[in-house]
Amino acid sequence: MGVVLNLDGKRGAASVASLMDLTADEMARVNELILSKAGSDVELIPELAKHLIDSGGKRLRPMVTLAAAQMFDYEGEGHVKLATSVEFMHTATLLHDDVVDESDLRRGRKTARMIWGNQASVLVGDFLLGQAFRMMVEVGSLDALDILSTAASVIAEGEVLQLSVAKNLETTEDEYLAVIKAKTAALFSAAAEVGPVVAGATRNDRAALRSYGTNLGLAFQLVDDALDYGGKSSDLGKNVGDDFREGKVTLPVILSYRRGSPDERAFWKSAIEDNQCDDAALEKAIGLLHKHGAIGDTIGRARHFGEIARDALAPLRPTPQKDALLDVIDFCISRVT
Amino acid sequence: MGVVLNLDGKRGAASVASLMDLTADEMARVNELILSKAGSDVELIPELAKHLIDSGGKRLRPMVTLAAAQMFDYEGEGHVKLATSVEFMHTATLLHDDVVDESDLRRGRKTARMIWGNQASVLVGDFLLGQAFRMMVEVGSLDALDILSTAASVIAEGEVLQLSVAKNLETTEDEYLAVIKAKTAALFSAAAEVGPVVAGATRNDRAALRSYGTNLGLAFQLVDDALDYGGKSSDLGKNVGDDFREGKVTLPVILSYRRGSPDERAFWKSAIEDNQCDDAALEKAIGLLHKHGAIGDTIGRARHFGEIARDALAPLRPTPQKDALLDVIDFCISRVT
Repeated sequence: MGVVLNLDGKRGAASVASLMDLTADEMARVNELILSKAGSDVELIPELAKHLIDSGGKRLRPMVTLAAAQMFDYEGEGHVKLATSVEFMHTATLLHDDVVDESDLRRGRKTARMIWGNQASVLVGDFLLGQAFRMMVEVGSLDALDILSTAASVIAEGEVLQLSVAKNLETTEDEYLAVIKAKTAALFSAAAEVGPVVAGATRNDRAALRSYGTNLGLAFQLVDDALDYGGKSSDLGKNVGDDFREGKVTLPVILSYRRGSPDERAFWKSAIEDNQCDDAALEKAIGLLHKHGAIGDTIGRARHFGEIARDALAPLRPTPQKDALLDVIDFCISRVT
Repeated sequence: MGVVLNLDGKRGAASVASLMDLTADEMARVNELILSKAGSDVELIPELAKHLIDSGGKRLRPMVTLAAAQMFDYEGEGHVKLATSVEFMHTATLLHDDVVDESDLRRGRKTARMIWGNQASVLVGDFLLGQAFRMMVEVGSLDALDILSTAASVIAEGEVLQLSVAKNLETTEDEYLAVIKAKTAALFSAAAEVGPVVAGATRNDRAALRSYGTNLGLAFQLVDDALDYGGKSSDLGKNVGDDFREGKVTLPVILSYRRGSPDERAFWKSAIEDNQCDDAALEKAIGLLHKHGAIGDTIGRARHFGEIARDALAPLRPTPQKDALLDVIDFCISRVT
């Protein structure tokens, strides 16, 4: 897979490097805009925002927006604002998620709610969402506004859906896919589609990028789910087991539960529903996941969506941006292989 | 003040009746739209939304939007969507506020967070905000979108500011006004301004309605602050003392604290900062508020902003809508007199 970049502080493959190269100048402007639009006379806001900015996410979503606009020879600055809006929407979601999930750590750092409290996390999330909409309005594209505001509704709807299926081991794979389609894929989809929209590309081009984003988002989430149990390796890495300890029913668990013996199902019930989720239980869970091929099959499902994403872009003329976006699919999958 | 309507289950004056009459048909469509846009296949969402809808707010903000559009002979349906958006923004704010304030009751009913939990309240709030933006986008006015998205940011910023001044008795009147201007007046202001905007009225007309909304909002909040301590009467009504028990530093408290003796200030500190806020303390607090004329002066400040709101509309040609909006100012003040 070439040189391994230390992109997210953990691991990563060179295949996202061309996306980073192509968007480097504009990402510098995105980063400036993030700082300026997270500014406020109310000190708590920039303080909390800085914590989030420093916590070093990949910024994959805004890079996708920028590259998707470049593909169609966009020459204005609207894509920089839209990319920043997308990142703000993502950040607002993380802030609210941490409150909803009562998470103490994210990427190994204390969550904002642990430092500034749930109250500030809810409200600064609301502020960032408001700022995201203001930037979209500045760009002035009603189509882009429609796409991103719809995404905002769908994401929240997906989060509520996730609440209602939480800790339910009988969740089917289809139901789980509906959750992650709303909660994760909708923003990737919107991030990709607003690129051609702001560039005035055709309906077909918009649909291609939308489909790319949706399926990339699904693949991305499923790989994340697999990584949370250590991926293909059965070594316990640093951030392994977070989903397990939070009682999250993700695809590896769904597959393993459905394929398991009555005894195994009883184990999953005690772990997920009754919070019997210590290190010994985690080790046993990982054993069951591998026994039933649940990790490998989750990665297989991710590959499936990755292929759909790849075919979505197939009709588009060859450009460095197209290659870079295709590389991102491989990058996502390669995180786990 | 004329006939007393039992408008909000507590008290109210006839002076809001003409606003209700003028907007009755369109409010029926707003209410339909509220139900349809709060719909979702995720059952929890319409369930929780119905709870909010049934809890019987006045819907003053959407009525202001409708009347403000009628004033300028608007004939489309955009104002109905914008009015619904305004109400959704308000509802989303209430949901998040109850989580932030850890409130158990609102208007004498259990808050959504007490029934469905903080998680659902945060997420359904996010959903309603997303739906609000989608409706605005459907209307297609970038100016209206700008006004309402800016309001969303400003409201959240005001809430964060309130967090940072919370329980601080040294808060000045100016600082407090900055909080309520952001947190309450900004939405009234936006609700009023989008009326002329969607109707294509002049800059001056927009500015007049914006100023009306801001100052009406300030008056409204200050009257609420006074009512929370029983208003001019020193009888303890049903919902009296909520702010006190939550340790909120509102204008009556600010005035009474600043005008008080060292002993009185020590009392306020124990009550607000150390939560010594039982019924005896509340009775003492109300005594101090009256001793220093803090309730009367809070109402005086509200009248001041009410007069500015009145003058803001002065240049506009006489219409039933103008009269109705002027009546709303009296209605607000009359709640406390």
